[in-house]
Parts: sequence; C-alpha cells; structure tokens
Amino acid sequence: MSIRILVLHGPNLNMLGLREPDIYGTTTLADVNDRIAALAQELGVEVDTFQSNHEGQLVDKIQAARGQYAALIINAGAYTHTSVALLDAILSAELPTIEVHLSNLYKREPFRHHSYIASAAVGQICGFGADSYLLGLRAAVALAQS
Amino acid sequence: MSIRILVLHGPNLNMLGLREPDIYGTTTLADVNDRIAALAQELGVEVDTFQSNHEGQLVDKIQAARGQYAALIINAGAYTHTSVALLDAILSAELPTIEVHLSNLYKREPFRHHSYIASAAVGQICGFGADSYLLGLRAAVALAQS
Amino acid sequence: MSIRILVLHGPNLNMLGLREPDIYGTTTLADVNDRIAALAQELGVEVDTFQSNHEGQLVDKIQAARGQYAALIINAGAYTHTSVALLDAILSAELPTIEVHLSNLYKREPFRHHSYIASAAVGQICGFGADSYLLGLRAAVALAQS
Amino acid sequence: MSIRILVLHGPNLNMLGLREPDIYGTTTLADVNDRIAALAQELGVEVDTFQSNHEGQLVDKIQAARGQYAALIINAGAYTHTSVALLDAILSAELPTIEVHLSNLYKREPFRHHSYIASAAVGQICGFGADSYLLGLRAAVALAQS
Amino acid sequence: MSIRILVLHGPNLNMLGLREPDIYGTTTLADVNDRIAALAQELGVEVDTFQSNHEGQLVDKIQAARGQYAALIINAGAYTHTSVALLDAILSAELPTIEVHLSNLYKREPFRHHSYIASAAVGQICGFGADSYLLGLRAAVALAQS
Amino acid sequence: MSIRILVLHGPNLNMLGLREPDIYGTTTLADVNDRIAALAQELGVEVDTFQSNHEGQLVDKIQAARGQYAALIINAGAYTHTSVALLDAILSAELPTIEVHLSNLYKREPFRHHSYIASAAVGQICGFGADSYLLGLRAAVALAQS
Amino acid sequence: MSIRILVLHGPNLNMLGLREPDIYGTTTLADVNDRIAALAQELGVEVDTFQSNHEGQLVDKIQAARGQYAALIINAGAYTHTSVALLDAILSAELPTIEVHLSNLYKREPFRHHSYIASAAVGQICGFGADSYLLGLRAAVALAQS
Amino acid sequence: MSIRILVLHGPNLNMLGLREPDIYGTTTLADVNDRIAALAQELGVEVDTFQSNHEGQLVDKIQAARGQYAALIINAGAYTHTSVALLDAILSAELPTIEVHLSNLYKREPFRHHSYIASAAVGQICGFGADSYLLGLRAAVALAQS
Amino acid sequence: MSIRILVLHGPNLNMLGLREPDIYGTTTLADVNDRIAALAQELGVEVDTFQSNHEGQLVDKIQAARGQYAALIINAGAYTHTSVALLDAILSAELPTIEVHLSNLYKREPFRHHSYIASAAVGQICGFGADSYLLGLRAAVALAQS
Amino acid sequence: MSIRILVLHGPNLNMLGLREPDIYGTTTLADVNDRIAALAQELGVEVDTFQSNHEGQLVDKIQAARGQYAALIINAGAYTHTSVALLDAILSAELPTIEVHLSNLYKREPFRHHSYIASAAVGQICGFGADSYLLGLRAAVALAQS
Amino acid sequence: MSIRILVLHGPNLNMLGLREPDIYGTTTLADVNDRIAALAQELGVEVDTFQSNHEGQLVDKIQAARGQYAALIINAGAYTHTSVALLDAILSAELPTIEVHLSNLYKREPFRHHSYIASAAVGQICGFGADSYLLGLRAAVALAQS
Amino acid sequence: MSIRILVLHGPNLNMLGLREPDIYGTTTLADVNDRIAALAQELGVEVDTFQSNHEGQLVDKIQAARGQYAALIINAGAYTHTSVALLDAILSAELPTIEVHLSNLYKREPFRHHSYIASAAVGQICGFGADSYLLGLRAAVALAQS
Repeated sequence: MSIRILVLHGPNLNMLGLREPDIYGTTTLADVNDRIAALAQELGVEVDTFQSNHEGQLVDKIQAARGQYAALIINAGAYTHTSVALLDAILSAELPTIEVHLSNLYKREPFRHHSYIASAAVGQICGFGADSYLLGLRAAVALAQS
Repeated sequence: MSIRILVLHGPNLNMLGLREPDIYGTTTLADVNDRIAALAQELGVEVDTFQSNHEGQLVDKIQAARGQYAALIINAGAYTHTSVALLDAILSAELPTIEVHLSNLYKREPFRHHSYIASAAVGQICGFGADSYLLGLRAAVALAQS
Repeated sequence: MSIRILVLHGPNLNMLGLREPDIYGTTTLADVNDRIAALAQELGVEVDTFQSNHEGQLVDKIQAARGQYAALIINAGAYTHTSVALLDAILSAELPTIEVHLSNLYKREPFRHHSYIASAAVGQICGFGADSYLLGLRAAVALAQS
Repeated sequence: MSIRILVLHGPNLNMLGLREPDIYGTTTLADVNDRIAALAQELGVEVDTFQSNHEGQLVDKIQAARGQYAALIINAGAYTHTSVALLDAILSAELPTIEVHLSNLYKREPFRHHSYIASAAVGQICGFGADSYLLGLRAAVALAQS
Repeated sequence: MSIRILVLHGPNLNMLGLREPDIYGTTTLADVNDRIAALAQELGVEVDTFQSNHEGQLVDKIQAARGQYAALIINAGAYTHTSVALLDAILSAELPTIEVHLSNLYKREPFRHHSYIASAAVGQICGFGADSYLLGLRAAVALAQS
Repeated sequence: MSIRILVLHGPNLNMLGLREPDIYGTTTLADVNDRIAALAQELGVEVDTFQSNHEGQLVDKIQAARGQYAALIINAGAYTHTSVALLDAILSAELPTIEVHLSNLYKREPFRHHSYIASAAVGQICGFGADSYLLGLRAAVALAQS
Repeated sequence: MSIRILVLHGPNLNMLGLREPDIYGTTTLADVNDRIAALAQELGVEVDTFQSNHEGQLVDKIQAARGQYAALIINAGAYTHTSVALLDAILSAELPTIEVHLSNLYKREPFRHHSYIASAAVGQICGFGADSYLLGLRAAVALAQS
Repeated sequence: MSIRILVLHGPNLNMLGLREPDIYGTTTLADVNDRIAALAQELGVEVDTFQSNHEGQLVDKIQAARGQYAALIINAGAYTHTSVALLDAILSAELPTIEVHLSNLYKREPFRHHSYIASAAVGQICGFGADSYLLGLRAAVALAQS
Repeated sequence: MSIRILVLHGPNLNMLGLREPDIYGTTTLADVNDRIAALAQELGVEVDTFQSNHEGQLVDKIQAARGQYAALIINAGAYTHTSVALLDAILSAELPTIEVHLSNLYKREPFRHHSYIASAAVGQICGFGADSYLLGLRAAVALAQS
Repeated sequence: MSIRILVLHGPNLNMLGLREPDIYGTTTLADVNDRIAALAQELGVEVDTFQSNHEGQLVDKIQAARGQYAALIINAGAYTHTSVALLDAILSAELPTIEVHLSNLYKREPFRHHSYIASAAVGQICGFGADSYLLGLRAAVALAQS
Repeated sequence: MSIRILVLHGPNLNMLGLREPDIYGTTTLADVNDRIAALAQELGVEVDTFQSNHEGQLVDKIQAARGQYAALIINAGAYTHTSVALLDAILSAELPTIEVHLSNLYKREPFRHHSYIASAAVGQICGFGADSYLLGLRAAVALAQS
Repeated sequence: MSIRILVLHGPNLNMLGLREPDIYGTTTLADVNDRIAALAQELGVEVDTFQSNHEGQLVDKIQAARGQYAALIINAGAYTHTSVALLDAILSAELPTIEVHLSNLYKREPFRHHSYIASAAVGQICGFGADSYLLGLRAAVALAQS
C-alpha cells in the first residue's frame, strides 16, 4: 500500500491568486494542488488536500489524520501565529509534520515571525511560493521512507 | 444601482444589551441594526448586516464580500485583538474597511489596545456606542462616493 | 429543582487518553465525564458536559448557558491562552465560572502561563488530572449553595 | 442658546496642504475650518477653532474652555503622543472630548500608536482626512444633545 | 497509621478576618484551621497547621517536614511572589506540594500573578476563600492514596 | 540678607481646586501660595512663586534663578514625566532643588512613576497635598542653612 | 491622650554612620532617634522607634501596631524593594503610613527605584538624610490631626 | 544670490559656558555663533542663528524656514529626545536638515540615546563641542552645492 | 554553460558527525558534500562548496561570488544569529540566497530563533538534516531557471 | 595573629546531600565544612562557618563580621537572587567578599542568573561543587595577604 | 614631524560602489581613499587607510596603532553593531577615536541604531556619504592640534 | 602520561598590562602565562597557552583540542558576550571547560553580564585578576583527576 500524505491549507489560502499578488503571485490554490498532485504521482505517493478558514475544522482534520497518514504538510496561514489549538492538535496526532509557507515570514511584519507550529514540526520551509509545498512533499516522502 | 455596504458584528455582539450594561448600555443588536438601516435609507444606500461568534464564518463572509460591496464596516469584537486571519481576509477582499467599536478601547484592558485590523483599515471610530456604527456608515458612504 | 452545572471541554480534549500520555495520562474524556457524573449524583446536582474544537461553538454554548445553569466549569484547553472571545462570552453569561486544567500550567511552556479566562473566573484549579474537574465541581456546588 | 463646541488643532496643522501630501492631501487648514463651519451651520451649532504650535497655549485654551463649551474636539497632532500636560488639561476642563486625527495612526510609526489623550476622551476617530473632524462634530453634537 | 498532612500559612495570614475584608472576608485563621480539622476528621487523616510571618521559619518547617508528612499544603502569602528560598525548601523536602490561595491571584496586581512555588507544586487552587484549603486537602489525600 | 527661595508650579496647577477634587482636594493655588507665604514668614525666609503652563517659560524662569535664589522647590506637574528640558535647566541653574507633588505619584498611572527631575533633585516629597510644599520649604531652608 | 506614632527602621539601618558615609553621612541611628524624640516633644506627640534586620519581625511589629498608633513612619531599607509581605502587613494594619528614605532613591541603582510600600503609603519623603524622618513626623502629625 | 542656512539652538543652550563645564566647556553661545559666522564668511554663505527654550517657537521657526533657506542645522537640545512636534515640523519644512550635538549622546544617560529628529535628518554629528556646528556647516554647504 | 551554485558551510560544520550526534546525527560534512554533488549531477548543475570557521573568510567568499554564481546556499551556523557582516555581504553580492539549517532552529535555544540572514534570503529551509541542503539545491535550481 | 575568614551558608544549604542529588551530589554541609577546615589548616588561616535559613540572621552575622574578619566567603543560596538586604549588609561590613555557588548558576533557571551580591563582591566562583568553597578560600587568603 | 591619522574601513566597505547604490551611491572605496588623501594633503597631515572584512584583523590593526597615530577614524561597518572586541581594542589603544558612517544609521533597521564603538569614541558623524570621512578627518586634526 | 590542559586567551588579552590598568593592573599576558606554568609544574600537569584576536582561530583551536586535552580553560574576552560560534565549538569539543575572567563581569557594563560560554562550562571564576586563571587551573586538575 502506498504512502499517504495530508496537505492542509489554512485560512485565506482559498483566495490565492486573487489576494495581494505582489506577495503571493497569481497562482490559485487549485494550481498549487495540481502541482502537488503531479509531484505526488511522480514520487508514487498519495496526497489528500484540504482547505478551511475555520480553526476548529483544521483541528478536527488533524485529529482525524492520526494513524491514517504517514505525514502532515501544513500551511496554517494566519493561524500559524495565533493558534495554540493547532499546535496541540499536531502534538496529539503524532504525525511527522512539515510547516510550509508561500512567503518568507521573516521579511514580513514581526507578528508573522513567530510560529506556534514550529515547535511541533520536523522542519520549516518558507519563501519559495508554491514550490514550498513541493519541497515539503519531497521532505515528507523522505521522512516516511526513512 | 445604489451603493452596497456590509456591516459585520463579531463575537458576543449578539449579547448586546444583556452584557455588561455599564460598558455597553441596554441597546440590543437589533436596535443597532435598525438604526443603521434607518440611516442607510436616509443616505440612500443599501446595507447588509451579519453577526457571528465564529472567526471562520467572519473570514468566509469577508472573502465573499469581495467585489460585491463598496465598503466594509466591521466591529470584530474580541477577534480585533487576536485574529490575524481576519486581517488577512480584509487584505484579500480589497474593500475599503472601517473599524468601529462601541467602547473606547484605549480606556479598557491593555490587551484591547492593539488591533490587528487597524493596519488594514482606512480608519477607526470608537467610543460612541451605537453611534460608532452610524459615524462609520457616513464615513463609508463618503469613501464610496469619493 | 436541583442545581444545574455546565462543564465545557475545549479543543483537543476529545483526544484525551491518546495524546501525550506522559502529560495527561491514559484516561479518556468519556472516563472524565463518567467520574464527573458520579460525583454529581453523589452531590445531588445535575451536570451537562460538552466538548468542541471550535472557539465559536464554545462561545455559543456559554451564551446559551446564561440563566440556565448555576455555574460554569471550563477547561478551555488551548483557547485559555488565546481567546478574548471566550473571556467576553463568560463575562456576558454572568455565571460563576471555575477554570480547571488537567496539568499544572505553570510547569509548562511560558505561553501557557497566561489565561484570558482567569480574570473572569471565581478561581482556578490546575494540576490534578481529572481530579481538577471533580474539585471544580465541589467548588461550583459550594458556590451555588452559598 | 445654541450649543458651542471648541475645535483645537495642534502643532504643524497650520502646514496642512503643504506638508507630506501623500499622507495628508492638499486640503489646507482653512479649508478644514470652512467645512467644519458649514456642517456646524447645517447642524445648528456654534463652533470656534484654534490652532497653535505651543503646548502651553493649547493647555491654556483647554482650561479656558471649562464651562464655556459643550464639548471639545481636538487633533493634538504630535502632542498626542508626548503631552501629559494636555491630558491633565482635558481632565481638569471636564468637557466631553473627542480625539480626531487626519491619518490612521495605527498605520504609521509605532510611536504614533500611543495617545495620552485617548484615556480622557469619549472616543477617537482617525483616518478619514478632514472628514475625521466632521464625523467628530456629529459625535460631539450627539453627545451634547444626549 | 494514618496519613499526615502539613498545612502552612505564610505572612499576614494571622490577620485573616481583620485585613481587607472585601478581598478576604471575615473568616479568621482559627476558623480556617477548624474547617480544615473537621474535613481532616471526615476524611480520616491527620493535619498539622502552622503560621509564620518569617520566611526563615517557613523554610525550617518545610525542611523538617521531609519524611514526616505525606503531603504539604501551602499558602505562602506574599512570599509566593518573592521567595526562592521557599521554592528550594520545597524541592529539598521532596513532598507532594499543593499551592493554595484564598483569592484569585490573577485578578489582582500583576506582581501577584507570578509564583515561585508553582513550578515545584503538583497543582494550584486559588480563588475559593477558605474552601481553597479544603479542596487542597481533598487533593492531597487523593495524591497520598494514589 | 534673608534666604530667598523660588517655588515653581507647572502646568494645570492653576486649575487646583477645580480639577479632580477626589485626587487634589478643593484648595486653590492661591490658598497654597498663602500657606507657603505664611510658613516662609514664620521661618524668616523670602519666597517667590510662579506658575506656568508653558514648558519654555519654566525653563526660562529656572535659568534666571541661577545665583538669585538659595534653593528651588518645583512641582513640575505633567512636565515631571516628559521634560528633559526642565532637567537640563535645573542642572544648569546649579541650585539645590526639591521636587514636590500633591499626590503620591506611585499610586497613579505608571507613566507618572518616572520623573526626569528626580535625578537632579536633592530629594522628593509627594502625597501630602499642599503640605508637600510646606515640608519642601522646611527642607529647603534646612539645606540653605546647612 | 496624646497622639502616638511608630517609627520603623529596616535592615542595616543599625549600621548608620558606619556604612558608606558618602551616601549616608556619619549620623548614627541613635542620633536619628534622638532627633525624632526631640521633635516629637516639640510637637507634643509620643513616638516609639524600632529597628530590625528581620523581615518577619517588621511584619510582626506592623501587625501589632494596628489600633495602637495614629500613624506609621517606615524606612524599610532594602525591604522597600523586595518585600510584598511588608506591603501586605501595612495594608492589614490600616494605619496612615509615611515612607521615608535617607537618600534619594531615584539617583541610585535602578532596582532601588521601585517601592512595594509606596502603593500603600500616603506619601513618600526621600533624599534629606535624617531630616526625611523629621519631615515625615511633621506630615504624620498633620495627618493624625486632620 | 548666496546660499542661506538656518542654525537653531534648542532649550538651555543659552546657558552654554555656565552649565556643567566638564561636559560642555566654557565656550558661550555667543562664542559659538561667532565661530559659525566666521566659517560662514570663509565659505561664502549666509547663516542666521536662533535660540529658544520654547518647543512651539522652534516649530514656528522651522515652518517659516520652508523655502527661505537651503538647509537647516539644528541642535534641539533636550527636545531631541521628546519632541515629535519638531520632527513633524522638519518633515513639513522639506529642508535638508543636519542634526548636531555638542556632546556625544551615546556616552550619556540612555534617554539621550534616542533622537526623534534623526529619522528626518540627512545626518548627525555629535561629540565635538562647538566644532560639531562647524562640521555641520561644512556638511550643509556641501549638500546645498551638490 | 551550466548553472553554477555556491554552497557555504559556516563555523563548526566541519565537526559534523562528531558533535552532538543526538541533534545532528553521524553524517560528516564530506558526506553532505557528496550528497550535494550527486544531486547536482542529477540536476545538471555545477556546485562549489566551502567551509570556514572565520566570519571574515565567509564574507570574502560571498563578495567574490558576486556575478560568478547563479545562487547562494548558506548554512551560516552560529554566525546566523550574530553576524550583521554576513547579512551585508549577502546584500552586496546580489545573489538569490537560500538559508538552510540542519536542525529546526525553532526547537532550540531562543537565541537561535533569530537569523540576521533571513531578511536577505529568498527563503529558509530547516530541520531536515542533510536533506535541508538538497531541498535548498532544488529550490536554488528552480530559482535560477525561473 | 592569623588571618580569620568567615564562611556563610545561606538557606537550604543545611539540606545538602539530601536535596536534589543530581544537582548537588551527596556531600553534606558537615563534609563541606570539614574540607574547608582542612584546607584552612593547610593554608594556616582560621575559618568560622555559619548556616542559616533566615535572611535577617545572615544580615546580623555579616554586620557583626565587620572588623573581625579579613574576608567573607558567602554562598547565599536562594537569597543571592532576591536579597537587597544582604547586598547592603555586605556593603556596610566593608570586607572583601567572595561569592561562591555549588552549581553553575548560568545553566539553571533564568531567575538564578542574577545575583544582587555580585556587584559588591570581589569575584565569583561557581559550578565546582564543594570545591567552589575551597577555591574561594584560596582566593580569600590571597586577597588577605596582598 | 607631521600628525599621523589612521582610517579603518570595516567589513564590506571594499564593495562600496557595487553594493546597494540607493543607500551608498556609486563612489568606490578607492575614490573615498583618494578624497581622504587629498584633504590630508590640504590639511598637512599624514593618513594611512586599511580595510578588512575580518574582525580580528581590525583588532590587530587598532592595537598596533597605539602610540603610532594621533587619532583613529573608524567606519566599522557591520561590526559597529556586534563587536565588543573592537570596543575593547579601541579602549586599549587609548587613541582619540572618531566614528564615521556613510549612511544615517538612525534611518535604517533598528539593529543598526546601536553602536558598541560609540561609548569609546569622541564623537560620531553619519549620513553624509564619503563626506562623513572628510568631516571626520577635519575633526581628528582639530583634536590632534588642540 | 601527565594531564594536559589548554588555556585560551581571547581578543585584546595580548594588550594586558597596557590597557586600562585601573581595571586590569600592570601584569602582562606573559606574566600570566608564567604564573600558570609555575603552578602547572607544582601540580604536575602540562599546560599549553594560546592567544588570538580572531574568533575563527579560537574556534579552530578548540576543535583541534578535542581528544588532545583533559580540560579547557578559556578567557574569551569580548567574544564571551557575542560568540555563539565559540559556544558551539566548546560543545563540539566535548572537553570539560572552565570559564575565567580577570575582572568581575557583574560590576561592569550590562552587556558584559551575559556569557554565551557559561551554559557550556562546568563553572565560572571571575574577579581575581591573574589568580582567576590559577584557581581555574586548580579546578581543571581536580576535574581531570575525579
């Protein structure tokens, strides 16, 4: 049975391609998911993706992932900086977790420099646009196979 | 076609008139909405109002407002101080946004002095009770007509 | 008519017994609720329990408790540290509120030392595992009878 | 006898229209005062305006306003952020005071986010250019009539 | 042989019932000790109580408790916030320790929010007046029996 | 020739007796000056008093006092907390300076706890209402005679 | 019956005249007490003095002063900056309290700028050497007679 | 027509030569102005000098300089550290501005390390006594000629 | 001509495989370089690697890379947290720069959470051991080809 | 007459050998005193040792040491971090003072990194267990002989 | 024999003219040195210049300058903000030192506002591009001749 | 084979005896090394000493010491406060390390109170001039023999 990986997109990522194109570019979330799916196929793994603007739904999804996936890739968007609940959900899911961001957080407002999720993640990748997800997927597959 | 403006009420504002009357008075949210509607009619604009205790629902609503309204008036209540997700939603909606508050935040606890929303808003009006909304509506109409 | 008390469990508490057993032990949330029910029966009071991962649902529930219960016992989990909305809901519900936690917050990460809820609570009990709820229930009954 | 309201302009506001037009626009202080006068006439109230670059003169003026005016509208400019003396003057004048600013302070340098005046004001309006004064005048009249 | 528990009262608690009754009520320390004794009898345990205004005497007492008691209940009063020596004494005594306070520390001055003792305690109970001790005693007995 | 002492009153002290009577009482500045004059006569010294709301005038006055007075008593009011210019003026005047305040600064807002003047003063007396000046006068005379 | 006033000297004040004469001069504590006694006689009041290096003894003494004295004058020495227990004792004694210091605290190390006692005192006098006590005694008598 | 440069001296600089000679030396302000005038003549430029202890007068003077001078040299003295109004005046005057100080601010009290003016100045020269002005004049001429 | 990429290893990375294996594993720097070389070959790019314990040598190397390489991959080790000189060198080299780290910095000591380099980098990858370099190489190639 | 040195042990050091052996080892305070005595004999000096849990007793002892001993070696234990009174006592005793600690304070909790005593001590030795005292004794003898 | 002055250029200044031209312009370091040499000739002094990217080399050079030069002019570049070693070297060289910077540090990132060197320098000149060096040279010559 | 110990001297220690004699005295580094050598002979151990002003050279030297020496004694001078690279080098060398300083760091500027090295050292000795090294050598030998 193949490796299964869950990719979560947090709040406002459904607006990708519409919102602040000078920061995020014109790629839509559907484009990102297509690129993830293409790389997944190339690497021979299964990937599910899910987006929500609701902190509670993301918590529910992470809890349900426990034991169902080999790894979690999460771009928690704005909840990265404010959600202890997501941190706790990741800890309780006990999945290797990779934190990704489209932009380089460290070049933006100071309140975006802190991540609650980082302390529960294996590693962090940020600043490469949609490629952050693809690099994250490669890292996740490497972890799952190690 | 007339100018359309969206007014959002954040968490606990449905309790208005019940809760801490020494701070907020006895006016209910329905009363506030009636006064907003009356002024809207006077000014010849359309106003929709919406209240939610759920951060995600407010994010959804703001995203959906993109291109549908000429301006957004928001009293984000407690989420003013904690929600980066609402800030991002407002940025992505690209609507002129007016932040209003019933009470003067700067006379209350220090954690209520900081607003994530302020940096994305045209301006802020606070301290005038339900009149904060009415002043905000006048400001919104002026912005929409300028 | 007997005293009615509402017990709220915040995000990730549904994972109790699965998550980080070195901190929380192997007791499940169902076990906790059973022990609460047993003590409620012994003390001759009615207790309702409710868990949610959604901040907005907890706000809704607290608002609805107004005038329906004699006291509120809340373990707000991660929202303890981030939710001004829960604080405002408790203030608007005007119920004597007891804050409980399974672990001793003051032995964990610094961001768990601050509670928004504490300033609206009668008192706080933490560090005794599921017994924190039982001690909280005794305190609530004493308050309701005083 | 009609309602009398005092509008105070602090330091450098006499330079309005000359200074940093990308922040403040090309409207001059005389233009602002004309718009205030026009709205005052429409609302049936008397308004006096006064500008000074001298902290002590503003203090003198506020003290003298005690008992002579129904409300005070003040844009204290740079003294907003540094003058405890203005705060004390407002407290001693015991007039309902409305703080206005042309720009949204919360989008500018951090040292402009703090206002000594806010803690003594009924409310604050900022970010709407000269309209901030007009909204402030409406708020002042409402307060004076309530 | 029955379980023995030591209850320590810190500085100024001998003034209970005299001092700031709006915070602490009119119950005296003797009343508190009587209620503790009554519950101890009900629970079938032995309790010794001791009060001192002297930090060094409290340190001496805690050291001497080592191996003599099954648990320590301590309301260190003002020393809670300033005494590293009490913290070290508790660590050296190696007794399960329960921190109690009459008032909810988190509703008082900021310097009362920090407890040196908390990091060495099993748990903390505060805000329930004399009942804080009784709940602490129940918790101590549960710990001693577990 | 008798000892001459200068007493300076800073901003808003001309409002004394009108302003916030629960903090400052109903005594006017003229009353204070009368009491100072009476004690001066009793102690056989000459006292001049001066009040201004203008920081620059106070600076001018202090500079002019150099070599003309044996000591300076100053209640700098709000400028206590913001004026480095007054500090520098006192340093340049090289007069023994006594800082007085009507109220106990340490019971008021945190921004009133810091005094720029304190570092250049012999001592500070606060909290005794108009008596703060009288105690300050006694201290000044003792200094001048020592 | 005459007015009785208690004067407390905190830690190391028994070393006065020996210790750091460039800060404190050569006057001994006995000299200070003699000067206090002389002024007490002149003013027609009774004064008791007490010195201790032990925080607990000072707490005991303050508690015992309750109802026995008309006012408390305290130079808490180093405990000024570290003792919440003394603050609580003063609050529980419910005596008008005057804080005095030999040196001007605000010219010394930053940790000496904060006083726990100040928030419970009527006022503070510092920087006048032994005269700080004499000024404090005059203030105490005025308070007792008012 | 020759280049015209304005030199402003802030509060207490009229005391130069009297005040704290170990920091500032014995040169008077007249001496400084003479040296400035001599160098101006040597460099073939016109210089006007002005001193005031009044923040508002300095603001007035800077506003009036707009379009009248090629550059501004300012030693704002104590207002350097406290005056946002001077900062705003410099911004509104739109003149190249050079900040000078007699002493090296970075060797003095921490509150003198921050300059509001620096962010609006071309550059800063400090620590060279009266030579700071002369170096500033050379820099101003170079700017005016570039 | 093929794409050329420079990989820099900062201080103590020559100790890799010897030092703190629980954090960094047993892979040596030669192993890392081999894996980088292998991937470079697979991707059809040229890679040069260089290690130094000397901040100045790293600065020299980065300066020399200007115009010679298509991208820079840097693990600055401890200098990440202390070197403004490396930041300036990267800015002056004007190469797209990718910051990599073996360990997840955000799980280590707080002083390792801040990176001077991050503000000049396209993005950051950390926490994946030697794979951080390989992911960085993929990102660099993507950047160079875009 | 031989050199006399006083060694003071602060709170909880009487528990040495019992308390937290992973930090402090199994050596008792008697063992430490024996080793000190042996080295004193070898070096030909007299040493007195004293332990107390009471801050006031330590202050008394240090005051009494003035002029009686050639040097003071002090391990103030927890009072190191909280006692300004000990600092003042050491200053008043005017003895060369050597601060010793069993453990390396800088590897423990942050509140143990600050020492009030350090600013009054010749030097500090920490981290060598009982050897810290012996090294301190050698240093004290060298000082006394220099 | 003529006056000799050493000019040191810190890290990345060899890139001048290449790097960030919007901040530093297009002048190269050779140009700067030529202008320094020309002014030195005009003023009749000898100047040596040296640039290094290595903190240790700059320390070596400063140590060697002791007694060989009449003054030191240093633009320490990025080491200004991080090097205590340069500060110590300047202190040990005991040469009058002038700190220069091309850009106005106070308009750039906050970490560039602090200079370790400033506390050991006579004065600081910043913001005038290469002219900062020339002004520094004039100041150095004035110091050497005074 | 005898015990071998490495002593490292950091930046500016080669200037010892020349630099700031009121802090460091007139002993040169050669004198210090001679005294170390003499004590080494007395204790029967071998000692190598090395000084560098270059952070990278000190890192190289520490790495090379791994497995070659029984202990490391380091006075890192100014790098104590700024070098994470030295900290990492010490961690990677896995040698018992003793931190020494000539002066008592805690009596100097605040930025000298923090040591990156302390957290990796067995213990710290400071304030005894050259004797700090000799005490450190005794401690190192004791560690090597234990």
